[in-house]
Amino acid sequence: MQNFTFHNPTKIIFGKDTVPLIGKEAARYGTRALVLSGMGSAKASGVYAKALDALKKNSVSFVEVDGIVSNPVLSKVREAIRIAKHQDTEMIVAIGGGSVLDTAKTVAAGAVVEHDVWDFFLRKETIDSALPVLDILTLAATGSEMNGGAVITNGETQEKFSASSIHMYPKVSILDPTTTFSVSPAYSAFGAVDTVVHLLEPYFNNTASHTTMKDGMIESLIRTIIDTIDEILENPHHYPSRATMMWSATMALNGITSAGYGKTSFPVHMIEHSLSALYNVPHGAGLSIVLSGWLQYMLSTKTEKIAQLGKNCFFIHGTDEMAIAQETIEAVRAWFQSINSPTKLSDYNIAETDIPTIAENALLLSKLWDMQEYSDDEIATVLHFCK
Amino acid sequence: MQNFTFHNPTKIIFGKDTVPLIGKEAARYGTRALVLSGMGSAKASGVYAKALDALKKNSVSFVEVDGIVSNPVLSKVREAIRIAKHQDTEMIVAIGGGSVLDTAKTVAAGAVVEHDVWDFFLRKETIDSALPVLDILTLAATGSEMNGGAVITNGETQEKFSASSIHMYPKVSILDPTTTFSVSPAYSAFGAVDTVVHLLEPYFNNTASHTTMKDGMIESLIRTIIDTIDEILENPHHYPSRATMMWSATMALNGITSAGYGKTSFPVHMIEHSLSALYNVPHGAGLSIVLSGWLQYMLSTKTEKIAQLGKNCFFIHGTDEMAIAQETIEAVRAWFQSINSPTKLSDYNIAETDIPTIAENALLLSKLWDMQEYSDDEIATVLHFCK
Repeated sequence: MQNFTFHNPTKIIFGKDTVPLIGKEAARYGTRALVLSGMGSAKASGVYAKALDALKKNSVSFVEVDGIVSNPVLSKVREAIRIAKHQDTEMIVAIGGGSVLDTAKTVAAGAVVEHDVWDFFLRKETIDSALPVLDILTLAATGSEMNGGAVITNGETQEKFSASSIHMYPKVSILDPTTTFSVSPAYSAFGAVDTVVHLLEPYFNNTASHTTMKDGMIESLIRTIIDTIDEILENPHHYPSRATMMWSATMALNGITSAGYGKTSFPVHMIEHSLSALYNVPHGAGLSIVLSGWLQYMLSTKTEKIAQLGKNCFFIHGTDEMAIAQETIEAVRAWFQSINSPTKLSDYNIAETDIPTIAENALLLSKLWDMQEYSDDEIATVLHFCK
Repeated sequence: MQNFTFHNPTKIIFGKDTVPLIGKEAARYGTRALVLSGMGSAKASGVYAKALDALKKNSVSFVEVDGIVSNPVLSKVREAIRIAKHQDTEMIVAIGGGSVLDTAKTVAAGAVVEHDVWDFFLRKETIDSALPVLDILTLAATGSEMNGGAVITNGETQEKFSASSIHMYPKVSILDPTTTFSVSPAYSAFGAVDTVVHLLEPYFNNTASHTTMKDGMIESLIRTIIDTIDEILENPHHYPSRATMMWSATMALNGITSAGYGKTSFPVHMIEHSLSALYNVPHGAGLSIVLSGWLQYMLSTKTEKIAQLGKNCFFIHGTDEMAIAQETIEAVRAWFQSINSPTKLSDYNIAETDIPTIAENALLLSKLWDMQEYSDDEIATVLHFCK
């Protein structure tokens, strides 16, 4: 167990019929909100209207910005910041999934400074304050609802970068699992993949010894997710499964499961960000492609840990660690395939000849995220395992 | 998964050499502190002097109150409240284990009101504010370092009652596992028992269905604790084990492991509080006595769940659930015995003829904790299984 600081002040309100609570919670932070939303699913499901109604009832006025896309873009962030400043907004209310929430956090930080918000992502400026962010989450995936991180894509430069700050933790996140009933099978599966990869990256990439406690919690969550996504795909309105998935996704990236692992790194995310930036691949889909290849790339270096995952999450038995590890990689791929998540670049028609371009793009992030062990050659090698 | 609110604002600073950080953290909350400590172990180990030195270096002046006993008493709380009011204290700094911390929280709530602090424990008054509490924890056991609860014993009335409030969450808890190196084998074991019982009470006593995710996390932590305490008893200076135990104890009662279980109840704690109140039994020791009997009492009602614990934490196999459950109870008892924690009232020379008196005392708490299913007869029945 390595030294750590854990400080997560987000208030989570979880469960059925909790959406209207946004009104009372928002009223604690002022009377003028900027309400952000995505491409219409929250409006179609009725969640959006319910939330707005609650704001009105609690005398919170608002301006609306919709149309936030998955792999949310910087241009939209800048537009929302201009509106927030012009309206003298006191808080940001996000209604949607991780993309809407990441946009909200970035707008919250950008609205209180004069410089361009992208400077936070380039590490040229640090985030010293932000407007309060409240959200109603409608997708179980990114974990953004209980952490201080945000990932934004700069369309002009094709960079998908991240920023984080204690000031960007949402004040209140409302998680009503019924809002995820209408999420498509594809995006439900991608959410499960995202959650599992959030758990696996610190599991594999840390500087701690004696990780039994941490590993045990992570393995237990992964077993749960594997069971739960099957039930969701079979019965999308199964409340207990949607609830379990939603809280698991939050737990996977709220700091609890990684606290004590020491310096952790996210190479699979690093490479995936380039797939999203260059080809607009859905994040979860990109992750299942890269994880499949990355495990193969790591087979000889992390044989025992891969085998441990196989034994404890895929119930693979045997005595030869290498054989178990190989079987584990096959089991992970088979799981992805069973939920229709891709495992190869070719599944998204990304050609082998593009690998140098992807590697070059990912290299930018390897520098920003302090992961110099991943040179462009190494990244290309990983990508060749993803063919 | 049942609806829940999770909001835990405590900042945890965990690891080696973190004690001096108390100075900088305290300085955020003012310049006048009341420093509370126990019976001298923190002074003997040097932790206390290090902490005071850090306060001085950060211009935080302080008044000291020591001598807080395990099963901390109301008279001491009242004495410290008088001093806090008189000195116009801005914050409470606790240096010690759960008893010192529970005293600190209670003093923090009592110092800002005019009425007697015991009214909070009798539910006559609610806690609407409190002074900031910061602590340096020196014992892995109660979990008080990351929740809003406090347990205090009223010596005059022989009542061991609890109070809790969002205002009593410590602002900052510093957890340096090396401060627990000097904890005796007995108290190390009692801490492990306390932690396991904090995990098992919501595991057994909840109103949720579909608890796979919750159960899995709890079982994983229990397996870790069982392995870890053995290593600690063999080698008390084994840092990774002390660290694992310390963070496990915090995780067991910070709300993460119980969120979503619905209404949970703590019958083993309820009955144990009477043993502590009447006989000053160490809390962990009392818990291992009561849990042993309570499981037997619950054998026919909770057969499957007891068997689940046995399969997943004690690796008991078989097809007959009742047989597995019985074997599980034996395994739990055997584990307690292996770490020299008591399993019978007679281990503390408590006579069978005392059972009605204990039951009568526990009944007070069954009312305050809204557990009317535990009449004095039922409590006596549990206690008869503890003989």
